[in-house]
Amino acid sequence: MSQGLERVVRLALEEDIGPGDITSQLVVPADHLSRAEVIAKQDFLVLSGVEPAALAFRLVDPEVKQEWRRAEGDLVTRGEVVCELAGRARSLLASERVALNFLQRLSGIATLTRRFVEAIKPYKVRILDTRKTTPGLRALEKAAVRAGGGSNHRFGLYDAILIKDNHLAVGGIASGGIARAVSLARQGRGAEAVKVEVEVTDLAGLEEALAAGPDIIMLDNMSVDMTAEAVRRVGGRISLEASGGIKLTNVVEVAATGVDYISVGALTHSAPAVDLSLEFLV
Amino acid sequence: MSQGLERVVRLALEEDIGPGDITSQLVVPADHLSRAEVIAKQDFLVLSGVEPAALAFRLVDPEVKQEWRRAEGDLVTRGEVVCELAGRARSLLASERVALNFLQRLSGIATLTRRFVEAIKPYKVRILDTRKTTPGLRALEKAAVRAGGGSNHRFGLYDAILIKDNHLAVGGIASGGIARAVSLARQGRGAEAVKVEVEVTDLAGLEEALAAGPDIIMLDNMSVDMTAEAVRRVGGRISLEASGGIKLTNVVEVAATGVDYISVGALTHSAPAVDLSLEFLV
Amino acid sequence: MSQGLERVVRLALEEDIGPGDITSQLVVPADHLSRAEVIAKQDFLVLSGVEPAALAFRLVDPEVKQEWRRAEGDLVTRGEVVCELAGRARSLLASERVALNFLQRLSGIATLTRRFVEAIKPYKVRILDTRKTTPGLRALEKAAVRAGGGSNHRFGLYDAILIKDNHLAVGGIASGGIARAVSLARQGRGAEAVKVEVEVTDLAGLEEALAAGPDIIMLDNMSVDMTAEAVRRVGGRISLEASGGIKLTNVVEVAATGVDYISVGALTHSAPAVDLSLEFLV
Amino acid sequence: MSQGLERVVRLALEEDIGPGDITSQLVVPADHLSRAEVIAKQDFLVLSGVEPAALAFRLVDPEVKQEWRRAEGDLVTRGEVVCELAGRARSLLASERVALNFLQRLSGIATLTRRFVEAIKPYKVRILDTRKTTPGLRALEKAAVRAGGGSNHRFGLYDAILIKDNHLAVGGIASGGIARAVSLARQGRGAEAVKVEVEVTDLAGLEEALAAGPDIIMLDNMSVDMTAEAVRRVGGRISLEASGGIKLTNVVEVAATGVDYISVGALTHSAPAVDLSLEFLV
Amino acid sequence: MSQGLERVVRLALEEDIGPGDITSQLVVPADHLSRAEVIAKQDFLVLSGVEPAALAFRLVDPEVKQEWRRAEGDLVTRGEVVCELAGRARSLLASERVALNFLQRLSGIATLTRRFVEAIKPYKVRILDTRKTTPGLRALEKAAVRAGGGSNHRFGLYDAILIKDNHLAVGGIASGGIARAVSLARQGRGAEAVKVEVEVTDLAGLEEALAAGPDIIMLDNMSVDMTAEAVRRVGGRISLEASGGIKLTNVVEVAATGVDYISVGALTHSAPAVDLSLEFLV
Amino acid sequence: MSQGLERVVRLALEEDIGPGDITSQLVVPADHLSRAEVIAKQDFLVLSGVEPAALAFRLVDPEVKQEWRRAEGDLVTRGEVVCELAGRARSLLASERVALNFLQRLSGIATLTRRFVEAIKPYKVRILDTRKTTPGLRALEKAAVRAGGGSNHRFGLYDAILIKDNHLAVGGIASGGIARAVSLARQGRGAEAVKVEVEVTDLAGLEEALAAGPDIIMLDNMSVDMTAEAVRRVGGRISLEASGGIKLTNVVEVAATGVDYISVGALTHSAPAVDLSLEFLV
Repeated sequence: MSQGLERVVRLALEEDIGPGDITSQLVVPADHLSRAEVIAKQDFLVLSGVEPAALAFRLVDPEVKQEWRRAEGDLVTRGEVVCELAGRARSLLASERVALNFLQRLSGIATLTRRFVEAIKPYKVRILDTRKTTPGLRALEKAAVRAGGGSNHRFGLYDAILIKDNHLAVGGIASGGIARAVSLARQGRGAEAVKVEVEVTDLAGLEEALAAGPDIIMLDNMSVDMTAEAVRRVGGRISLEASGGIKLTNVVEVAATGVDYISVGALTHSAPAVDLSLEFLV
Repeated sequence: MSQGLERVVRLALEEDIGPGDITSQLVVPADHLSRAEVIAKQDFLVLSGVEPAALAFRLVDPEVKQEWRRAEGDLVTRGEVVCELAGRARSLLASERVALNFLQRLSGIATLTRRFVEAIKPYKVRILDTRKTTPGLRALEKAAVRAGGGSNHRFGLYDAILIKDNHLAVGGIASGGIARAVSLARQGRGAEAVKVEVEVTDLAGLEEALAAGPDIIMLDNMSVDMTAEAVRRVGGRISLEASGGIKLTNVVEVAATGVDYISVGALTHSAPAVDLSLEFLV
Repeated sequence: MSQGLERVVRLALEEDIGPGDITSQLVVPADHLSRAEVIAKQDFLVLSGVEPAALAFRLVDPEVKQEWRRAEGDLVTRGEVVCELAGRARSLLASERVALNFLQRLSGIATLTRRFVEAIKPYKVRILDTRKTTPGLRALEKAAVRAGGGSNHRFGLYDAILIKDNHLAVGGIASGGIARAVSLARQGRGAEAVKVEVEVTDLAGLEEALAAGPDIIMLDNMSVDMTAEAVRRVGGRISLEASGGIKLTNVVEVAATGVDYISVGALTHSAPAVDLSLEFLV
Repeated sequence: MSQGLERVVRLALEEDIGPGDITSQLVVPADHLSRAEVIAKQDFLVLSGVEPAALAFRLVDPEVKQEWRRAEGDLVTRGEVVCELAGRARSLLASERVALNFLQRLSGIATLTRRFVEAIKPYKVRILDTRKTTPGLRALEKAAVRAGGGSNHRFGLYDAILIKDNHLAVGGIASGGIARAVSLARQGRGAEAVKVEVEVTDLAGLEEALAAGPDIIMLDNMSVDMTAEAVRRVGGRISLEASGGIKLTNVVEVAATGVDYISVGALTHSAPAVDLSLEFLV
Repeated sequence: MSQGLERVVRLALEEDIGPGDITSQLVVPADHLSRAEVIAKQDFLVLSGVEPAALAFRLVDPEVKQEWRRAEGDLVTRGEVVCELAGRARSLLASERVALNFLQRLSGIATLTRRFVEAIKPYKVRILDTRKTTPGLRALEKAAVRAGGGSNHRFGLYDAILIKDNHLAVGGIASGGIARAVSLARQGRGAEAVKVEVEVTDLAGLEEALAAGPDIIMLDNMSVDMTAEAVRRVGGRISLEASGGIKLTNVVEVAATGVDYISVGALTHSAPAVDLSLEFLV
Repeated sequence: MSQGLERVVRLALEEDIGPGDITSQLVVPADHLSRAEVIAKQDFLVLSGVEPAALAFRLVDPEVKQEWRRAEGDLVTRGEVVCELAGRARSLLASERVALNFLQRLSGIATLTRRFVEAIKPYKVRILDTRKTTPGLRALEKAAVRAGGGSNHRFGLYDAILIKDNHLAVGGIASGGIARAVSLARQGRGAEAVKVEVEVTDLAGLEEALAAGPDIIMLDNMSVDMTAEAVRRVGGRISLEASGGIKLTNVVEVAATGVDYISVGALTHSAPAVDLSLEFLV
């Protein structure tokens, strides 16, 4: 189990439970036992967040029994039971909200990702996430993207080289800049094991990038036509990633241009939560 | 400054920067100085997240100069400069994404809240948030709701008593249950300083609750008509909160019933991020 | 289990055990097994701290068996066995002092609280604690007050509104200040779920407060006569809390005035430790 | 500055402030500036806790100005100003209770220690503390003992060897046990730099201990007469520490026996808080 | 500044200073000011660890003035002053050992790396580190390798794909295994941004790997002759890394084979500390 | 189990695994079970690090079964199986490197210590470590020294008094300084339980120290002849520790002088890692 996972689940429990669940302490007997179910309340829901939700239940009370009927990445429909729980009623009530908050947000991301993936199924392109994730939840949100059928772009600033306009600008690198930046990156001593990607915004930039020879070229906010032209010029020599302003409504025409990757910030920064609830049986 | 704030900003920086920003280390000189601006890229944006964003810049490099031109809660329009930054280019590049992630999510919440608040302006009702917040970000998200003109419901399980159906069910409290639960809560020794709220789902429950005398009654998932009837029956004796399934499209008719509060989970669990970016000047 | 509890118990173990119990390592064989008992060494001892003490034993060695013969809140007499332990002698020796430090301090608080509660039994008043707690132990000390039969005042600055003289003074709120402060608090957007309490020091302040209509009025350092007059004037319309300088020697006459609550800082800031020890059987 | 200090002060601020000081946010303007003083409200108060109190003010708001008029260990009298503060009123209100909680408890320990030290002034004996400290505050409480003129016994299980009855019992070391235990400790490889102390409860044990040759012998719960006899027998060859049941009322006669050290658990486990308050000037 | 850096420096200070530097407290006046210098005590020392050492001095006392005369990566000779310090003597004494422990170990790594880099200068090959680093210090040790002129292999299990024998074995992938594993890795959804490396131990494996087309092939524990043959067969189509048992005494002949990278575990797991000391001037 | 141990193992796992082991996720099925062995790959290896290695395996996956065939401190030979493991292949692969990094470094220290201890076996002297340990690993490295047959010098600045030249210099203590410093230390109130050691660099200093009467005298960087003369002059009245520049090649002649302790910084700052590996059986 990831160390970071435990840290974020503990943080969430601390902020919700604080010094204690005063309602349950006052109106629910300490030893009352209950059974409860996590149930999907909407159609077409891709499940994600099983691990942090399970950990929330367990950290509050290791004696609560959990039977997960659906797994990470499963497609679930309204009314289906996702998980059966049994244990002290106070423990279930104390962990309910935190567990659901993880499940609802992460399944929201997996579900939105799945919609994009379904949309572009006829094409060989892959859907990528970005670094526009919720502070503290990156690893979980990137796992949710995978649960939805998407692929992960880099995890952070440390595991891939991505040269953007800003790097050229602030690096004082003017004309011929891309070539020099790629060359600096390739000769640098810090990162033999990682790929080099370059962001370009027009076809002139594309030509420069092609000459420099990175592993991937990102086409930033290009029109569909320009993207198609870029694919034609590159001719498969280098992987191409379309990025910027891509939504469910236009992703298919971007996919049809033949790019290798489409990255979508909204997967993690704007996915609405899905509807799941915890219902007590006794 | 809240201790919790620092913890969550450090966590976000850790997950994004990890062992280091390899791109900048390779292509940007260590001492290169830059200026940059945080700029709004959409209309009608209510700013929130200034404190964590400012802290992210400061924790990465205390020597970066920050001039915030807009304050928490300000309404900002496309093209406006929110903050001016000056300092080492590498520091700006390393903190950019984390600062923007805070600003974009929290301003998204403030902006959505503001839309609800604007919609119900003619009525005396207040818009409340819920505990359906992002794990780890509750205090920040509740501050964002205030920045948008909303009010905060309880922060967690520890600072108000809210008796729900589940408490009655699992507590083995059958008919006459609400009265007994409220009485238990009132006589309990754990919470002299907090209010007691009871959730009801129909008019029979409302009558029971009225008799028990809590501080607030929550009308859970009631139709607009039933809500109006509830308001009529209570006649101002106890505060009423409408909750469940309330959206921008139906909030006005709920407000028109005369309830005191409307709580909206979507404020925090489904607000889309707003569009803000960091642009380098040199 | 509360996340905060684990943090404070780990902290206590760290500071006591540090890099290791050098005495036991040198003179006690690693696998030697022992049995031991926690025993009360004084009469009239109200037990508290069971949870952190049990956790201290468990964190040092999950294989130590614990049989708690007395529960949180029980009244225990000299010579009674509170808990039976069995396991590695080194583990018992390493956790002994930390477990006892929790039990002795928290039972001290519960015991002192119980003395106050017994003293005012003929009256309907409740004994409240304050925020004058040991840094880091607030939740545990407030639980100890409940174990002793007392009630909890607010947990911190976040879960109730308490308007004191200082707020009026620093807020630049002069005459008519209480009314304005209560009104600000009531209209504020930050705290729909919490009660509003106002501190007054004389009868003029009381009248002002009465007019403003808070949920509770605190009578700060008033004489018994003035307290009685305050109770008379309020006539049950608003809850009253007596506070300041109240001891076992004068609590009964304060209770006799008819106030609803008496808050006592000494419960947590000056309770002497009770006498408990760990005795090895073999 | 000790790393542990910062951790415990942050913990105390977290538990008191939590998600925010809702009273001040509602009734005190954000930029209102104030001046305030920490004032002694009782006579004969030995100040301790300056460092954590100062850190509490600073962690809440680094811009608050602090002028400490009295230093750690100073004897302060009713009405004296200990510290002058100036800064945002909200910051002062948010840090007030935590800073006072540190000062009141730690000064309580220093003050009680000073009473013991004054009492035994005619004798060469020193007053020692024990490990019966508040969980999480050991280093601060031991500093408070020094501030009061006392000396520190070991900090934890790691920095001195103290062989007690329990070690002999659980170690399966029967007659001749002390000699064997001291010998094990002396030959052990774990602790060349630390002293070896042995606890004895009667004169037979004392003779055994004398023969074994530890650095210090602790006379546990011995009568004054037996203590005097022990001093006579040892004749200055080894340091002697009297321990167990020693109070202000009997410390002088114990001191008069000629022991080198007197250890007093009550210094840290039962010192009442002193009276200090924060008063706002504007 | 990296968040992880601060964590490890605080940990090191905690373990060395603990509850306080008792020697200095007893024999050095609290306000005594001193000047001191960090001085190289050996020839051919490549400096590394400047950032953690500087942070150690600053965390103990932010008022200590530091003038670093030599920078990260500089070659320093016996007797040269690396850093000048001025401030409270107690602060310098309390931070001395931790600062030196960082400098001595990390400069040891940089120095050993530099020896390897100098040895293979005539060749185009680069020296890489491994994941055989000291627990808790990976980022610092990898920076030390860069300071010595080496390059970094992957930082952890998360930022590059490296398929070893064990993966093939435990994956139940028998003959044709490399091709299948590379294909799984390439089609996987988790890692678009990273390179794929395959470990082979003989020429048959090399041929399989060549057919599979990874980004890098690691030649594990091959003889120099086999390595040379591998270089010949690959003919520059894919990068080659020699790994296993490479020392200063045989690194040149490995380099002469024409491989692209040579990875050396000893850089981080067996580099002896260099000799540096802190000398007080007054 | 020490709290600090868990912290450092978690830190090591975090830095190695980060957001996840991408290779295993891609090429090893989630439920594939394996068996593996930790095997010694060199002769004369003293095992240390069993506890952190076992904890690393357990924290990654509590269901992995561990059978340790060799214990802390055992002498192990090439080819011997140290530990047998069984469980999910992915778990074994994810914890392998961290567990080995602990074992290799700590066994390296134990092994080097054992060489010193063997070398001086004919003499009564003991081998001590120093504070020149790896940041974050002190407790583990000191345990490794004990595992190798060595003894521990002080753990940090807090558990013994060691007066060095620097203390005399910065304390403004000129001639007669040692006596005054020892006297200050002896009279100080902070450290009754710890020993006082004084460092001297020549025979004049030795005479001064002898007169002052510390518990131990450290002979810093003295020649063998001068050391022998020091032993002669002291005549067993006070323990003597030789320190500075002592290696396997000269330790025997230092031991022959008759000193009580020899402290060796290289035990912890320059011990090469031993060779151990994890081999998969299926």
